[in-house]
Amino acid sequence: MTENLAGDLDDLIDLDDLARRLDHEHVFHSWSAQAQSPQLVVASGRGSRVWDHSGREYLDFSSQLVNVNIGHQHPAVVSAIREQAELLTTIAPSTVNLARGEAAKRIVDRAPDGFRRVFFTNGGADANENAIRMARLHTGRDKVLSTYRSYHGNTGAAVVSTGDWRRIPNEFARGHVHFFGPYLYRSEFWATTPEQESERALQHLRRVIEAEGPSSIAAVLLESIPGTAGILLPPPGYLAGVRELCDRHGILLILDEVMAGFGRTGRWFAFDGYDVRPDLITFAKGVNSGYIPAGGVIISDPVAETFDERVFPGGLTYSGHPLAMASIVATLDAMASEGIVENARAIGETAIGPALAGLAEKHDVIGEVRGEGVFWAMELVADRETREPLAAAAMGRLKGAMVERGLLPFVQDNRIHVVPPCVVTADEVAEAVAVYDEVLSTVGEN
Amino acid sequence: MTENLAGDLDDLIDLDDLARRLDHEHVFHSWSAQAQSPQLVVASGRGSRVWDHSGREYLDFSSQLVNVNIGHQHPAVVSAIREQAELLTTIAPSTVNLARGEAAKRIVDRAPDGFRRVFFTNGGADANENAIRMARLHTGRDKVLSTYRSYHGNTGAAVVSTGDWRRIPNEFARGHVHFFGPYLYRSEFWATTPEQESERALQHLRRVIEAEGPSSIAAVLLESIPGTAGILLPPPGYLAGVRELCDRHGILLILDEVMAGFGRTGRWFAFDGYDVRPDLITFAKGVNSGYIPAGGVIISDPVAETFDERVFPGGLTYSGHPLAMASIVATLDAMASEGIVENARAIGETAIGPALAGLAEKHDVIGEVRGEGVFWAMELVADRETREPLAAAAMGRLKGAMVERGLLPFVQDNRIHVVPPCVVTADEVAEAVAVYDEVLSTVGEN
Repeated sequence: MTENLAGDLDDLIDLDDLARRLDHEHVFHSWSAQAQSPQLVVASGRGSRVWDHSGREYLDFSSQLVNVNIGHQHPAVVSAIREQAELLTTIAPSTVNLARGEAAKRIVDRAPDGFRRVFFTNGGADANENAIRMARLHTGRDKVLSTYRSYHGNTGAAVVSTGDWRRIPNEFARGHVHFFGPYLYRSEFWATTPEQESERALQHLRRVIEAEGPSSIAAVLLESIPGTAGILLPPPGYLAGVRELCDRHGILLILDEVMAGFGRTGRWFAFDGYDVRPDLITFAKGVNSGYIPAGGVIISDPVAETFDERVFPGGLTYSGHPLAMASIVATLDAMASEGIVENARAIGETAIGPALAGLAEKHDVIGEVRGEGVFWAMELVADRETREPLAAAAMGRLKGAMVERGLLPFVQDNRIHVVPPCVVTADEVAEAVAVYDEVLSTVGEN
Repeated sequence: MTENLAGDLDDLIDLDDLARRLDHEHVFHSWSAQAQSPQLVVASGRGSRVWDHSGREYLDFSSQLVNVNIGHQHPAVVSAIREQAELLTTIAPSTVNLARGEAAKRIVDRAPDGFRRVFFTNGGADANENAIRMARLHTGRDKVLSTYRSYHGNTGAAVVSTGDWRRIPNEFARGHVHFFGPYLYRSEFWATTPEQESERALQHLRRVIEAEGPSSIAAVLLESIPGTAGILLPPPGYLAGVRELCDRHGILLILDEVMAGFGRTGRWFAFDGYDVRPDLITFAKGVNSGYIPAGGVIISDPVAETFDERVFPGGLTYSGHPLAMASIVATLDAMASEGIVENARAIGETAIGPALAGLAEKHDVIGEVRGEGVFWAMELVADRETREPLAAAAMGRLKGAMVERGLLPFVQDNRIHVVPPCVVTADEVAEAVAVYDEVLSTVGEN
């Protein structure tokens, strides 16, 4: 007994070890086999950096799950949370709360004209769930079309809208149809130019709509720029073409801006860079960098009006949660006053883009580099001709090597996503690129 | 222009009015027709009371959406949020964080033996989504059985598990089957005693299981005590009987403790009062009183082990969110050290129960009173013999009259749910009961 107690006390001195022990015993983790316990402890952070209890520091080029757009622990947002926490943390959605109205107003101010109302949720999944619900009830139709290369969340309809492997064991929702979006580097349409990819992807969507029956389709749900699927910037004319197809058939266009929105691309919304106007916009992540769980749907007036007299059959206890709302207000105000979106754009143009192009010249393993703002992907290939993806084992080694060197990367399939906070500096980009450079030099050594 | 500006500035002086104006212009509300704008502004609170910007105070006998178990603005939880906000608000679920492990440990410490792991979500809906996912993958089966009198959340599978009207416009998930649970006051089984209701409800469930095909059924999903549906305490033997039926057919039992858990009944879990052991427990609300959006699944070891080597295909960006976790730690510690669960039990036995029984003696409109802890319902009827529910218009008038008198009630269908925070005092109960008494005396006057 005494020996055990002494042992326990010794362990308590090492907070990183204690954190790992509690985690491995009691925490069930997302998207993983539980026997592979995570090792990286994060105790605190600031800007683009985080550290563990012992002070070991990491440069965060993942923005965690591409959500910390404003950087870690922005002082204005932390202050706003602390102040609102003193006032009122939570209140039912059926009441009126000033922070909620202020947050909604700031969000619609960033949206196109004709978007007056926001429905708040706890994150991106339930944002998409509720956008799908609105589209079905507004149109009186059933089907939702989304792409195979997409991620829309982990709940019932959101995960079945998702195209990737996560959908397959979860396919318990109906009314979902998938199609292929544009992705020139791995074209599904035998295209060789961006214009051809755009045109053929639109023809493919048009054929799917015709074959499914246009009058059965409530919505097309698209990430403006598919994120986890590979940061797939739509080619010229694609989103405008989707809009046109939707208009032709009375189909709503839902743009999922959960990952791409609120500064990531160097614009407030990713779709601001394209000639397209959605009917519903879903958001989460960057709206408050996830400091408090929050998401939502920005609703165009005609869809909102559907529910003026008719009860909207969706809702949640923490919709418009005052603490989350205060963090949104502070985040959007700080992003505006500190030029954080502009920084993301500039750093993408002057630092990340050129540096990644340099790496691609040097390392044959880089098949393609694409992106904008602080939203980039390096696609790694075993062979530049065949474009065969670099094997999972090699990707795993690269990831380990980057973490060892103090860089938190975002590694997905055969890609490194270069997705630092929007506040990242040119020096930090240079530091990360030096690590990328070093570890990419080792590919093929094992 | 100048006139308008002056008008705007005048308005700004009245924060309640500003809050209402922003709300009506920009906030899209849960479960309602948007033309019915909420009027009640809440700016702050403490314990069982909230108030607006002008200082007008309300006694909260709703706990908002039955979530503020620890009361409004508990200083220890507010402090913990403020402290963790300084350290680290958010981090990816794939990392290790001490607050997350500490929260998980405290939760499993309250669960039965054999529950070692917690999967964290943002609320109750995604808790149920993930419990359903685990059950389906663990059993390799498809169907989930739940009751018509239930609410399990607003997302894909959760809303179709739900039995009430909210399911019907949202029925886009498959693999859900509904049955009737016990509810002696409005028995579906022509029963006249609790024992008969229990036995017949079990026989009904047995027949549904047989007719659906036991080997097609992954789980039975039940609120331990159906909450929004009417605070329907299960009769003796019912939950144990459901467990036995599940065991006989290899079906998992998911108990939804989102509303009933963490002190509401005067116990840590509602099911602690019954002879039943679930396989999965879902929670949200009371675990941290919703100060930060959070929920989760407490997983029995055999189900958790399914995912030791096999990837769990569920997850979310804010799973195990540090700020939410710190609020859970502080909430559960304060509830334990301040005897808050014991207070809920005692106040139910000595104050609420007797007072409601007194009201029922006096007011014929009360058809039944039932409950325990701070979890009670008064069922209002037009006629005690026929048990015809009191009409919606009369319920609406009652609600308005209570709010006018400074009491926030929880009104659902033909019922008043008496659901104050667990910290409520006997004096506050007397104050609320006086309002109930007064407004119930007016029924039939209009």
